[in-house]
Amino acid sequence: MSENIAVLGLGLMGSALVGSLLAAGHRVTVWNRTPAKADPLVAEGATRADTPAQAVAAGSLVIACLLDYPSTHQVLEGTPLEGRVVANLTTGRPSEARETASWVTGRGAGYLDGGIMAVPQMIAKPGALILYSGSRTAFDRYEPALAAMAEPRFTGDDPGLAPLLDLAMLTGMYGQIAGFLEAAALVRSAGYPLGEFTASLLVPWLEAMAAQQPAWAAKIESGDHSTEVSNLEINRAGVENLVRAFHEQGVKPDLLLPLKGVIDRRAARGLAHEGLSGLVEEL
Amino acid sequence: MSENIAVLGLGLMGSALVGSLLAAGHRVTVWNRTPAKADPLVAEGATRADTPAQAVAAGSLVIACLLDYPSTHQVLEGTPLEGRVVANLTTGRPSEARETASWVTGRGAGYLDGGIMAVPQMIAKPGALILYSGSRTAFDRYEPALAAMAEPRFTGDDPGLAPLLDLAMLTGMYGQIAGFLEAAALVRSAGYPLGEFTASLLVPWLEAMAAQQPAWAAKIESGDHSTEVSNLEINRAGVENLVRAFHEQGVKPDLLLPLKGVIDRRAARGLAHEGLSGLVEEL
Ligand SMILES: NC(=O)c1ccc[n+]([C@@H]2O[C@H](COP(=O)([O-])OP(=O)(O)OC[C@H]3O[C@@H](n4cnc5c(N)ncnc54)[C@H](OP(=O)(O)O)[C@@H]3O)[C@@H](O)[C@H]2O)c1
Ligand SMILES: NC(=O)c1ccc[n+]([C@@H]2O[C@H](COP(=O)([O-])OP(=O)(O)OC[C@H]3O[C@@H](n4cnc5c(N)ncnc54)[C@H](OP(=O)(O)O)[C@@H]3O)[C@@H](O)[C@H]2O)c1
Repeated sequence: MSENIAVLGLGLMGSALVGSLLAAGHRVTVWNRTPAKADPLVAEGATRADTPAQAVAAGSLVIACLLDYPSTHQVLEGTPLEGRVVANLTTGRPSEARETASWVTGRGAGYLDGGIMAVPQMIAKPGALILYSGSRTAFDRYEPALAAMAEPRFTGDDPGLAPLLDLAMLTGMYGQIAGFLEAAALVRSAGYPLGEFTASLLVPWLEAMAAQQPAWAAKIESGDHSTEVSNLEINRAGVENLVRAFHEQGVKPDLLLPLKGVIDRRAARGLAHEGLSGLVEEL
Repeated sequence: MSENIAVLGLGLMGSALVGSLLAAGHRVTVWNRTPAKADPLVAEGATRADTPAQAVAAGSLVIACLLDYPSTHQVLEGTPLEGRVVANLTTGRPSEARETASWVTGRGAGYLDGGIMAVPQMIAKPGALILYSGSRTAFDRYEPALAAMAEPRFTGDDPGLAPLLDLAMLTGMYGQIAGFLEAAALVRSAGYPLGEFTASLLVPWLEAMAAQQPAWAAKIESGDHSTEVSNLEINRAGVENLVRAFHEQGVKPDLLLPLKGVIDRRAARGLAHEGLSGLVEEL
């Protein structure tokens, strides 16, 4: 079904979203603070609005993709939202999403908060995912249209959930990136070809290790942190050895150091026989 | 070809290695400080030695799998090694491997250092890998026998290379684990099912992100840290937002904090327009 959709915010991401909605045959009205960014999209078939209110008047589904929540509030302030569904795909914190949800629903609109797990280049391509939370009714109503941008996944009624899960995925990514950067610095210090190391050793290894995470999650959910594989004592010795090797190679292990601190904290409670999953209790 | 192999050290890992060598039809002579650990292996067909020297006399390939390098030295001290190849699969630092290599070769033996990328349960199974470095001649001579334990990968002549690459892989793994633990703590604080998050959101995401690492490695090798996707300024805002969300949820973002520090350090050099790969220059 072809929908009337308003998109507010035509940055890199907003523009990519509009392109995917047009390609799927929807009628898209666009607004951006700097009007020139609408030009290429109008050439592709979008309708230009001069104000946010004009865009919202033309769309029953209103997609916001702005810098942050304060700019979202600025843009929606004074815009009649009655009867609309607002899908806010701006990145933010759970607390901001909850606050915006009550502000929007208080003005007679349905609210969905969204977390985009993709870069603009990935929009409408396989692997792109957008997490949603808030009004299940609104999600069900617009799911086919939302699917034009990226695989839509509804996560729950609490509007803060999608941003929280988004941040949790970014957290996992930043940890992986930190590990990669330290590993790269160490490998480079030995003059070993980094591309070869990364493609043929590190990536397959990280994939195999990621596959263990659901088992760790089960341990955390059960509260049973016992292990048959490698306890905190062994890991403490391993991390200490690592840190010494970094120093010998003249590389700073800064990004790894707090893990050592948290292992020590946990071990000091007499829990050195447990596995690494127990560290979650210290966070 | 069936080989005469001595294995020194029958802990969890040494015992698994012996099992795989026996299964491949090699003649294996075993020694362990605590003799009783040899019993099940003798029942499987291994020959018991009463001293390290007696084991080494029976094996042209000598595999050591002991606690650490100091114990390896203790065990090999006073044992004639002339004409043998020593493959030391004990975990250690590059500096220790180099020192042991010159000590062993000085006594008329060939030397290989090895890093086991597997737990004992994975030995002789697909996916298990052992990195080797040191004497290429020794590796080529014994590669078929080594392949019985795990896929053998020769990495270079510097005996310190295998332990260094081993430590670099562990470094990547510890980063990934730190990210997982923080993500898990955040998700748990919101009462969202952690198993569901991990299996259906986090793991596919981490796999997709790991697939980007070879491109990052190429940036690091070229020294060109420019980016079209997300620069340090955006990531700094992202990490700050993350840290705030952690505090709002009552979770400690300790394991992520140094990444923020290193981004700040890099940005302070006026390089906030570069991508995250540039952080390697600060380590
Ligand atoms: N790019 C990505 O890879 C990516 C991935 C996932 C999520 N996101 C999220 O998507 C959102 C947009 O990102 P983007 O990449 O499109 O960023 P961008 O290219 O920097 O665009 C920012 C947009 O926000 C608008 N804006 C900023 N302040 C405003 C204000 N006070 N009033 C009205 N409009 C304002 C800008 O308008 P002007 O054109 O007038 O400046 C522009 O349309 C962000 O929340 C971002 O975190 C991005
Ligand atoms: N287990 C793993 O998942 C794994 C993975 C990769 C690498 N590794 C490496 O493999 C090596 C062995 O690990 P493991 O799991 O087999 O450990 P383990 O079960 O604790 O066994 C340690 C072995 O070292 C011996 N040993 C310790 N100190 C000694 C000394 N001073 N003199 C003589 N022998 C001594 C022990 O003899 P006793 O029986 O007499 O105590 C035992 O045979 C370590 O370097 C480890 O880092 C293990």
